[in-house]
Amino acid sequence: MRTQVAIIGSGPSGLLLGQLLHRCGIDNVIIERKSKAYVLERIRAGVLEQGLVDLLHEAGAADRMMAEGHVHDGFELAFNGQRKRVDLKRYAAGKTVMVYGQTEVTRDLMAAREAAGLITYYESDDAVLHDFKGSTPSVTFTHEGIEHHLECDYIAGCDGFHGVSRQSVSPEEINIFERVYPFGWLGILSETPPVSHELIYANHERGFALCSQRSEKLSRYYVQCGLDDDLSEWSDERFWDELKLRLPSDVADKLITGPSIEKSIAPLRSFVAEPMKFGRLFLVGDAAHIVPPTGAKGLNLAASDVSTLYRVLKKAYVDDQPEWLERYSDICLRRIWKAERFSWWMTGLLHRFDDGEFAQKMQQAELAYYTDSDAGLACIAENYVGLPYEQVE
Amino acid sequence: MRTQVAIIGSGPSGLLLGQLLHRCGIDNVIIERKSKAYVLERIRAGVLEQGLVDLLHEAGAADRMMAEGHVHDGFELAFNGQRKRVDLKRYAAGKTVMVYGQTEVTRDLMAAREAAGLITYYESDDAVLHDFKGSTPSVTFTHEGIEHHLECDYIAGCDGFHGVSRQSVSPEEINIFERVYPFGWLGILSETPPVSHELIYANHERGFALCSQRSEKLSRYYVQCGLDDDLSEWSDERFWDELKLRLPSDVADKLITGPSIEKSIAPLRSFVAEPMKFGRLFLVGDAAHIVPPTGAKGLNLAASDVSTLYRVLKKAYVDDQPEWLERYSDICLRRIWKAERFSWWMTGLLHRFDDGEFAQKMQQAELAYYTDSDAGLACIAENYVGLPYEQVE
Repeated sequence: MRTQVAIIGSGPSGLLLGQLLHRCGIDNVIIERKSKAYVLERIRAGVLEQGLVDLLHEAGAADRMMAEGHVHDGFELAFNGQRKRVDLKRYAAGKTVMVYGQTEVTRDLMAAREAAGLITYYESDDAVLHDFKGSTPSVTFTHEGIEHHLECDYIAGCDGFHGVSRQSVSPEEINIFERVYPFGWLGILSETPPVSHELIYANHERGFALCSQRSEKLSRYYVQCGLDDDLSEWSDERFWDELKLRLPSDVADKLITGPSIEKSIAPLRSFVAEPMKFGRLFLVGDAAHIVPPTGAKGLNLAASDVSTLYRVLKKAYVDDQPEWLERYSDICLRRIWKAERFSWWMTGLLHRFDDGEFAQKMQQAELAYYTDSDAGLACIAENYVGLPYEQVE
Repeated sequence: MRTQVAIIGSGPSGLLLGQLLHRCGIDNVIIERKSKAYVLERIRAGVLEQGLVDLLHEAGAADRMMAEGHVHDGFELAFNGQRKRVDLKRYAAGKTVMVYGQTEVTRDLMAAREAAGLITYYESDDAVLHDFKGSTPSVTFTHEGIEHHLECDYIAGCDGFHGVSRQSVSPEEINIFERVYPFGWLGILSETPPVSHELIYANHERGFALCSQRSEKLSRYYVQCGLDDDLSEWSDERFWDELKLRLPSDVADKLITGPSIEKSIAPLRSFVAEPMKFGRLFLVGDAAHIVPPTGAKGLNLAASDVSTLYRVLKKAYVDDQPEWLERYSDICLRRIWKAERFSWWMTGLLHRFDDGEFAQKMQQAELAYYTDSDAGLACIAENYVGLPYEQVE
């Protein structure tokens, strides 16, 4: 069995890459450890930058998003009894974001892949990456009891933080930079109308809270929680009570509560592995870097890696310029470090840390400065809608 | 003996306040612990915001500054082998800064005070502030062996971080917020032409360095040093060698060295005492707050306090609106916290901290983001030239 690009992982990154490559005539096969149903059930971010929206158009998988997604041209920061709106359209030169669940993106890309008749091996066990530092890379894996050997030109590691791709590289070839934050996010999904048309990020002395949404009937709320908190301690009632305490009172008064249909605790981590290319293996998205969810950069950052990898592979295959492949890592990392910075900064700006009164005063001063100043608002806005993709040309 | 406003301290804040009050007919007396020569010998900052330049005009003490000072419309950030210019004029709506030594400002204000025949008691010992929480404030002190009792309406505490004014308030009435940084600045003054027309702030793996100047013949250079470093360990030769290592090589090659005429080590501290008004006592400048020197906000921040106190006292005396006095602290603190934030941020951006590889990567990402982005450059520029003074009307 042979393909041009073997893609490890069928999350949105792998699917998007596969679709983009297919549409410029580059053959690819996806190998996924989990079932299709499992992949579809993962609840993740729901704020898409224009860059990702453009890529979904380019991949031919944007129709439902355009019909059902919601363009947001602003969001709110609540702190110290105030509510300040970040007018994205005004401060980011007309740019906006699209609110559309990652689950839906995955679903649309899966449908497009199936319509194109492309191969995905779900529930593949024991994937092993071979000879990616040499000239004859391949992937072996077991699918429905049968052992497969997939030969390829290149391997794209789109299999996330815990996937096999990064783990296949010897540790001495990778530099790891990491920060683990001393708290988590407790999130729930509920079939209730969102409390606000726009997202509200709240800095409160009891901890961070976030009001977000998936649709007009589906809300997603979060509160900062302890890293060791157990889900069993968090009844729906306790969650709603805590959320209300952290929101401005006029928002809390309007909040419509209901039973949670999903509830989970996620840790917050900043993580970057450098470089992102090892011979013929390319790491993409969470396989190479993690951001804390504040600012919703995770999926969007994966998308900019996908865009870069797609474009350098196209240079190699279509324009016969394989030298572009050598630049993959540097091109990606320039943008990644800036997005890591923004996610780290937004996390620092909005959460309660146990780091003393002076640091808390600095946090309040940051909130006051950045929301009072046009330049400060422009910094927040241009990062939130997504910094420009690095050029590949 | 009686005056309207007793001013404690004859540094630039006290002198500027005295001159401004005098020019709108408000009588004042300055009490200073040190000699006139001592006050004049203190080497401090040399970058004046437009707000301070305007105040010096208003005080009638701007002539020599306008003739001898240098308008700077930009400065440089050097990091990671790059030099990036912050174009103040472009990014701060035409605003610039004036490079003119604090010592010279003090000298000009002293001359103006003498010309106006106003009273300053230099070398006053044992100053004690009385009844400032009541209705008959006064200051007692010893001058040339004679004990004086100065009755007044108000007391302005312009006597710096170690002065008697803040210490006269009972600790339970003051909230202190403080950060002490784990390094110092070793600074020298030398009679050599500056290496660069504009200031250069350098982030280097060996530590921060700064090239600044007082005039075309007088240079002021700094390197980050250990808190426990002893001046005797730092020969001129070692200083110049270290400075050169931290500067971009083309700058280092041009550096003209010479014997130091002043050399000192200063600790770096962020400090704010809240509130700043206690009955009829008003704290001004360093008496209430300290910033680390990165960004040159110390004198400028004192100047905005002086401006506020002058304007509220004018409201009280000239417009018969003493209720404005109650707002002094709040008006000052809004701007102070933003300047504290900028000084803390610039310090964090440019120094070497011993806080791990991820934090260092964030520092590099901050430098890259803020110097690549128009919005980021505008944030730096508008803070560097000075955020607008809070209105008193």
